[in-house]
Formats: sequence, structure tokens, C-alpha cells
Amino acid sequence: MSKNKLRIIPLGGLGEVGKNMMAYECKGDIIIVDAGIMFPENDMLGVDYIIPDFEYLMNKTDRVRGIVITHGHEDHIGAVQHVIERIDAPIYATPLTRGLIEAKLLRNNAQHKATFKTVQAGDRVELGAFTIEFFHVCHSIPDSVGLGITTPAGLVIHMGDYKFDHTPVDGWPTDFGKLAEFSKRGVELLLSDSTNSERPGWTPSEMVLGAGFDKVFTEARGRVIVATFASLISRVQQVADAAVKHDRKMALAGPSMIDNVKIARKMGYLTIADENLVPLDQALNMQEHKVVLMCTGSQGEPSSIVGRLSAGTNRQFDLRPGDTVVLSSHPIRRTINRLMRRGAIVIYDSIAPVHVSGHASQEEQKLLLNLVRPKHFMPIHGELKQLTQHAALAKQVGIPEENVIVAENGQVVELVGGQMRLAERIPGGYIFVDGESIGDIDHGVMREREQLARNGIFLIDLSVDKLSGRLLHEPEVITRGFVSPEDAEALIPEVRKRIMSMVNGGGLDSQKDIANAVKSYLHEQTKRRPMVFVTLSKA
Amino acid sequence: MSKNKLRIIPLGGLGEVGKNMMAYECKGDIIIVDAGIMFPENDMLGVDYIIPDFEYLMNKTDRVRGIVITHGHEDHIGAVQHVIERIDAPIYATPLTRGLIEAKLLRNNAQHKATFKTVQAGDRVELGAFTIEFFHVCHSIPDSVGLGITTPAGLVIHMGDYKFDHTPVDGWPTDFGKLAEFSKRGVELLLSDSTNSERPGWTPSEMVLGAGFDKVFTEARGRVIVATFASLISRVQQVADAAVKHDRKMALAGPSMIDNVKIARKMGYLTIADENLVPLDQALNMQEHKVVLMCTGSQGEPSSIVGRLSAGTNRQFDLRPGDTVVLSSHPIRRTINRLMRRGAIVIYDSIAPVHVSGHASQEEQKLLLNLVRPKHFMPIHGELKQLTQHAALAKQVGIPEENVIVAENGQVVELVGGQMRLAERIPGGYIFVDGESIGDIDHGVMREREQLARNGIFLIDLSVDKLSGRLLHEPEVITRGFVSPEDAEALIPEVRKRIMSMVNGGGLDSQKDIANAVKSYLHEQTKRRPMVFVTLSKA
Repeated sequence: MSKNKLRIIPLGGLGEVGKNMMAYECKGDIIIVDAGIMFPENDMLGVDYIIPDFEYLMNKTDRVRGIVITHGHEDHIGAVQHVIERIDAPIYATPLTRGLIEAKLLRNNAQHKATFKTVQAGDRVELGAFTIEFFHVCHSIPDSVGLGITTPAGLVIHMGDYKFDHTPVDGWPTDFGKLAEFSKRGVELLLSDSTNSERPGWTPSEMVLGAGFDKVFTEARGRVIVATFASLISRVQQVADAAVKHDRKMALAGPSMIDNVKIARKMGYLTIADENLVPLDQALNMQEHKVVLMCTGSQGEPSSIVGRLSAGTNRQFDLRPGDTVVLSSHPIRRTINRLMRRGAIVIYDSIAPVHVSGHASQEEQKLLLNLVRPKHFMPIHGELKQLTQHAALAKQVGIPEENVIVAENGQVVELVGGQMRLAERIPGGYIFVDGESIGDIDHGVMREREQLARNGIFLIDLSVDKLSGRLLHEPEVITRGFVSPEDAEALIPEVRKRIMSMVNGGGLDSQKDIANAVKSYLHEQTKRRPMVFVTLSKA
Repeated sequence: MSKNKLRIIPLGGLGEVGKNMMAYECKGDIIIVDAGIMFPENDMLGVDYIIPDFEYLMNKTDRVRGIVITHGHEDHIGAVQHVIERIDAPIYATPLTRGLIEAKLLRNNAQHKATFKTVQAGDRVELGAFTIEFFHVCHSIPDSVGLGITTPAGLVIHMGDYKFDHTPVDGWPTDFGKLAEFSKRGVELLLSDSTNSERPGWTPSEMVLGAGFDKVFTEARGRVIVATFASLISRVQQVADAAVKHDRKMALAGPSMIDNVKIARKMGYLTIADENLVPLDQALNMQEHKVVLMCTGSQGEPSSIVGRLSAGTNRQFDLRPGDTVVLSSHPIRRTINRLMRRGAIVIYDSIAPVHVSGHASQEEQKLLLNLVRPKHFMPIHGELKQLTQHAALAKQVGIPEENVIVAENGQVVELVGGQMRLAERIPGGYIFVDGESIGDIDHGVMREREQLARNGIFLIDLSVDKLSGRLLHEPEVITRGFVSPEDAEALIPEVRKRIMSMVNGGGLDSQKDIANAVKSYLHEQTKRRPMVFVTLSKA
């Protein structure tokens, strides 16, 4: 194995390559970049959230030199607690990112296992074979960084999530100078964010939201309720500014929103004067046109404030007639419909400028490629379709096709001697987290759940005389999720009759034979295939 | 009850109001407009398709004067077979629409129950209290019509699906003259398509796809596989034209595609010369750059050709390296990713002009409102959020807010004495169709399925000596979809121990008590709540 070989490992996640966790490996040293979570899709039943499968690292944990975090969003920090439980390595993060991770660890009572090293954009850190230069990038959270990673195989730029916002809320644009300097040094490989690679043009600046919120606050007669991700600190700043302008006090709802605002204010990333914030219970008793409630649940997640408001199950407060709910996100349609059904005026991105993406669009992606002029390119942070489009853009700006690799999670890529190539595949999947347990719902269990849900269950309990082999009583039947109770009731006499004749007729058939006979009969009658279980007692 | 009262009844469907089926009722006469199906959402498990709940009509079927169909898409004709099973009324449809319904009935062996009355755009038909004037509208299928319905309560315009395409593939634009004439007569109420009410501007003409397909055919080196809805006849024409231009023969895959093309060609709605069509098995053996395969499955439905190609389970042919798959629709992301993973070059709407919507955008909706100048307006064909935006547009063009009603499925609206108002609610839901059975999966069954799927099942079988009340053998346990088999195995000894001490200790506890005790223990250990079933035999 060449000593200068760099291994690039997108470790896992739900479709989006390298989004939640990646590793770089060289000369026996390993660094992890990000450790985030994903939320389950509609048909992943009974799952709270999903973490990347990092099994690959488990027999080499002593070689992990650091866990480097690019920014403080859940899909990049949410799995830190699970990673540090099994890997003892320091966490490198900028101040705000560190603060958000610490708050999350504290909420989950996992703070004692973490060792932090605070870094600033502009810092340089040596981690074994890797020298990392942190540089500022714009994203929808302050204090985001990209990584310039000097390795024995050459200089690698890992962008993290970014956009080229020239007028960000915090006034701190992406560090173009550093990107140009890297380019001058010669970049062997660029890895960058493909989220919006199907979107032409340039992602609008966060500045456009100022006018959007202004209009909402001008027109609202009752309360304004704004929902966004708790980690979208700059959005909170914009709503706070609109509130001051329109003489409303802001209250916060949801523990993560309260925590994050507290941290960001304390650290100076969020400027809200004390007199403009009021506790939630006070806000609920104020005149309606004098308050704005800032909540979690931009996409209507069931456990969030807005999810509960839309279902009518929120504890502290309910929607009132005249409330204006602003979904400052890319919300799902069910949430919008439900909130409207409860009488709220609902403002969302397709009807008003109350949300912009935090990710670069095609023109920005091309600008980055031309600023950096990498020899090799590997699109990350996207599903196969976004990666493919990002690769097509790279080809358009002149990166030779053979120097571009589209790799999915679990596909190791190697860079050695100025050549990039696919190496082996490792487990690149994901692990379900449900309640307090991790990974005990595997894909086999999910398949069983799907099967249960698709056609329901049909349970048969038999008692047989161990001497005569005859049934001691009629078979008992329980069904769930199969057909309506009345329809099931109508089928049961014939099922009983058939089982009795099988068992009493010619000696006992096996449970499996009985189950199969019942399955055929049920399919013949209903065209369905419920899971059939036969339990048998001999006495 | 005023004799001139018109009742407007959006009968049911999946979220989109009045999309699949509506009824109008006046002076004891009823007409039905459309009878379509919807496809289930991700979390509606084990459901093939969904039909509107038309229970409301069942005790007045003798008053139904006709089933009037606006156009031949599945979401407007798919439930005809279910409606005519229970309601004996003639079906009014234009020639192509009739042909498509007949083919569908034939495929389902239900043709004998249908009575058809063919109508042409421009025709006038009297159905009891209703006089219906059919007028041509553009949509993504030829021979679509809107309805001018003269009723004792005034003239009602029911638009159906439409767009104002000035350069449609079939050269037959929407009948603006008729709309102007209606306006002159005075329109009491307009009901119109809200699908794209959140989309600014004007929906592009179908003409733009010509250039899109031209580019695809120019660049493709291997086979071209185009997927679209089988009922998108104009799309088939555009692909056929591109095929002729680029010297490729077209083959058809999927029974509904084959049927529909046959009907549309026979009736003159589709112009493809015999020599340009080849059977599929012949196409599969031709040189790859000489063929285009036209398939069903634009959205990757599992049972469609493209769904099976993406899963690698298609019988007649598989994807080959170099295939270009064009998804001429608004496809779901999983399908795109899967096709790419199988090596296809995939072209879809967000990266190339290979699909346009068949529905009017905001500027067209405003034009319609201004052309017709209705006194009252009721947005239909959309979820609450689209209806709400459509209502906002109507307000913008000057329809007084009090003359606009947003009503969801099952909400009866009445028009009487020049006033429109909400009346009672009727069942406005939908019915699941699974295999050959209709409606025996109700919402209760769906809830059970969800519960099964959320946490799995835990079955316990007990045999007890009827004299001593003691267990005859250790409790047997079966789990599915709960936790991994190893984790379940680890829990079972303690579950057995607890049950044995309950049963043998102090006389037999009830099955329910045992189930509850097991539930608590499992929740304590796993934070999960599987469905627990206890069966008990006494011997």
C-alpha cells in the first residue's frame, strides 16, 4: 500500500452521500468529518431518527485523530453523541457549533464523554497525516466552515454546506480569498455540496427574507407564529429584527429553540435585546398583535410545536382564529393543509419569500469549481441524481470526465499518485434509532414491519389432545389489520371447519401445513396474504 | 326547500377537492361529473388504489340522470367501473374519452354494465333540470371538455382540468369564444382547476417539449426509453414525431399503453404510420440506436414497466448500458436514483424540458376569471392550500370575498336565490381498493396496520392445566417486526419467568393482565410498545 494513498470514505446516511458523516484515512491516521442524523421517510415505521453506519471504523478507533464538524445543523452534529460513545477522539468545532453540540449533549445527558477543541475560521490544526485549515463559508447558520485538508496525496478541499451569499444576515461572506489561495497552491481534489445541483441560477441571498417578513408582519392582525429549524440562527435574527420594527415581543417555544437562542445570544451570534424577549406564558396573555412566537417544527415533524399545533395536541397553547403561521422552511403539504384546516393564515415559501435555501445553486457551484480549479472532483451531499448533475456541471466547466467520481455511501475512493479510483465497498448504510435503543431494528425487522402492515395478521390457536390428536376445542382466531372485523368474522367459520377436518381427519398436520392451508384459503377469498401464525398446545 | 336550489357536492377523494368525483343536485335530479381514482400515498400500506366514497348517492341512485366525464385521465375515469356497478345511468363522454373508458372496462371485464352517449365539444344535452353544453378545453389529453351547466339556479361553468395552451400538439386550443359567450349570458358560478394556483406565470405550451425530445434523441447513443402516463396521448404523439425525425422505430410496452395508442390511432387522435411502429419483441432485437420504447410508469409505480425496470424485475426486457430513460412526468426521486444506479442515463423535468404541466398557472387562472366574470367562485381540484391560493387570486381580480367558497370534500355547497352558502357535511372520504376487494379495508384496519408496523407484534401462547391452573409447559413466544431476533431472544427468558410466576403463583391471571404485564416489561426494556397477544388453552 502506497504510503501516500488517501482513502475517502462516505460513511453512510439516508441517500445523501457523505452528508451525515465521512472519513479520510491516510498513513494509518483517520479523521471523521461531521456526525449527523437524518429523519425517517414516511414508510420507515416507528423510527425516531437515523444515524450513519460507522461500523467500518470500529476496529480502528484508536487511529481516529479527531472528529471535525463543519457546522451546527442536526444533519451534521446530531449523531455526535452516538459516535463519542464508541470513539474516543476530540471534537473540533467553531464556537457556535461547539455550543450547539454541547447543548444537545446536555439535553441527552451525554456531555461527560466529549472532549472539545475550539477552532476559528483561519485556524490550522495538525491531526496525524492531515493538516486542516478551517475557512469561513456562508450557510444558513453562522460560524460554518469548509476544510482545506493537506494530505500526503495532495490538497483536498471539503466544502461542507455552503452558498455564496454576498449579503448574509451576519455580514460575513464566504472566504473567497482563501479559496483562491488554495487554487494557487494547487488543489488535488474538491468535494462539494450537490444539494441544489438541479437548480439553475444563483440561490437568493438571505437578505430577500427581510422584505418577506416585513410584509407578513405588516399584514398580520393577530399573532404571528414563525416555525423554522431551531438551528437556523440567522432566521431567528431576521424574525427578531422584524418584531422590533413592528413593535412585537418575541417568545420562544420548544426546548431546542430555547437552548439554541440562549447559546447564540450568549456567544454574540444573535443580537436580541432583553426587553424584546418575553417568556412564552407571558406572551400567551398579551394582546395578539403585540407578539411573535418563534417555534420548532418547520416541516411539521409530529413531535415539534408546529406539528402538535397542526394536530391540535400542543400542550401550552393552541392556534387561535387570526393567527398567521409562517413556515420558514420547505414545508410538507400535509402540514400546510392541516394548519389551514385549523383556521390559521399560513404563509410558506411558494407563496411568499419567507425561506431561501442555504445551499449553492448551479452558478455558484460552477463558480466554486472555477475558483478552486481542482484536478479531481467528487460531488457529495446529494442523492445519486444530484451528484450526477453536479458531475455534469464539472464537465461543463472543463474538469475531464475521467477525473470526476460519483460514489455512493459505502463506496471507498482512493487518491494515490495523482490518480483517483474506486476502491472496495464497505457497509455504507444507516441505523435506525427508536426511543432509547440503537440498531436493534435492522432491515430484517423493517421488512417484517412492512409485511405486517401490508396485509395484517391472522392468529390461530389450537389445543390438541396429546393422546387422540384431536382438537380439544374450536380453533381460536385473532386478526388485526387484515380486513374489517365483519368481513373477518364471515371468513372464520370456514377456516375453523377446514382446520378441524385437517387435524381431526387424518392425524395432526404440522403447524406449517395448517398455516399454508389457511393462507391459500384466505388468498382465494380476499386476494390478500396476511401473516398467519399457528400456535399449538398438546395436553 | 326552494325548487331552484342547486346543491354542489364534492364527493370525495384523497385531499384534492372535487378532483375525482362531484355531483350536482337540483329539483330531484342529479348529475355526476367524473369518476376517477387516486393512487395511495407512501404510508397507505397494502392499498392498490383509492376511489371516492359516493355513499351519499346510494339512496337516490334512481335520480342520477347521467355520469358526465370531462376527459380520459385515470383520476377522472378510473372509478367508472365501480360507479356503474351501483348506479345505472348513461355515461356522457367525447369519443376519445369513451374509447379509453371502454378499453379500461374491457380490461377489467366490466364492459357489459356501461351505457354510453357520445358527445362532441359544442353539443348540448338535457339531463333533467340540467342543460349541459360541452366546450373544448386544452389539457394533456385530446378531446377534453369543460361544462356549461344551465340550472334553475343559474349558469354554472365546471372547467375540469385545463390550460390555455395556444400551440397544443393537436392544434385545438381552448374554446375562448364559448367562454366569452357564457360570460355575456351571465355566469352565476365558476368552478375551476386549482392544481397550479401556487405557480406564478403561465404554464409552458406542449410545443416546448418538441425541442426537448429533439435534444434527447440527438444525444442518445443507445436505446431511448420514454415513460409517461398511458393516457397522455399528446406526449405519445410528440415522441412518435421525434422518432420519425431521428429514424427510430417506436415500440410500446405495458397493456394500458398498447390499448390507448391503439384506440387513439383508430379514432384519429394519434398519427403514427404503421411502418413507424414495431412490436416490442422485434424492437428488443434491433440495433439500439434504431428504437424508442414507449412505456408506462412515469412516476415509477411498482407495477409499471419503469417501476419494474428500476427494480430489475421486468420480465420482457432489462435496462442495458447506454440506455437513455426519459421520465416525461413529474417523477419521484427514488425512481430517478434507482434507474441511475442501474446504469441508465436519466432525463427528467428538472434538468431538461421533457415534461410540462397540463394545468393552468396563475396568469391563466386570472384570465379565466376575467373571461367568465362569474358572480360566485368555488375553487376545486386542489388541496386546501391550492384552493386557498386560488381564492386569493379570485379576490385579486375583483370577485368579492363573500362570493368565494373554499369547501373540502364532503362539504355540500348550495346556490339559491343568487346566494351561495355552506350546507351540511356528508361522507366525503375515500375507499381503499386492494386486489379484488373494495372497502373491506376501512380506516380502522389501516390504523391497525400502522400499529402493527410501528412496533411489531409479540405473541405468547399458554397452556394451563384446567384443574391446577398451572402451566403445562413454558410459554411459547413469537415476535415479528419488534426488535432483532437476537435482541428478542435475550428478552424472552425474563418474560417467561414473569408469566410463570404470575400464572403459577396466585391462580390464573386474565389474558389481559398477562398482556399488560408483558407490555410494561417490554416497554421498560426497549421503550417500544409492540402489539401483545396472549392465547390460552386449558386442558
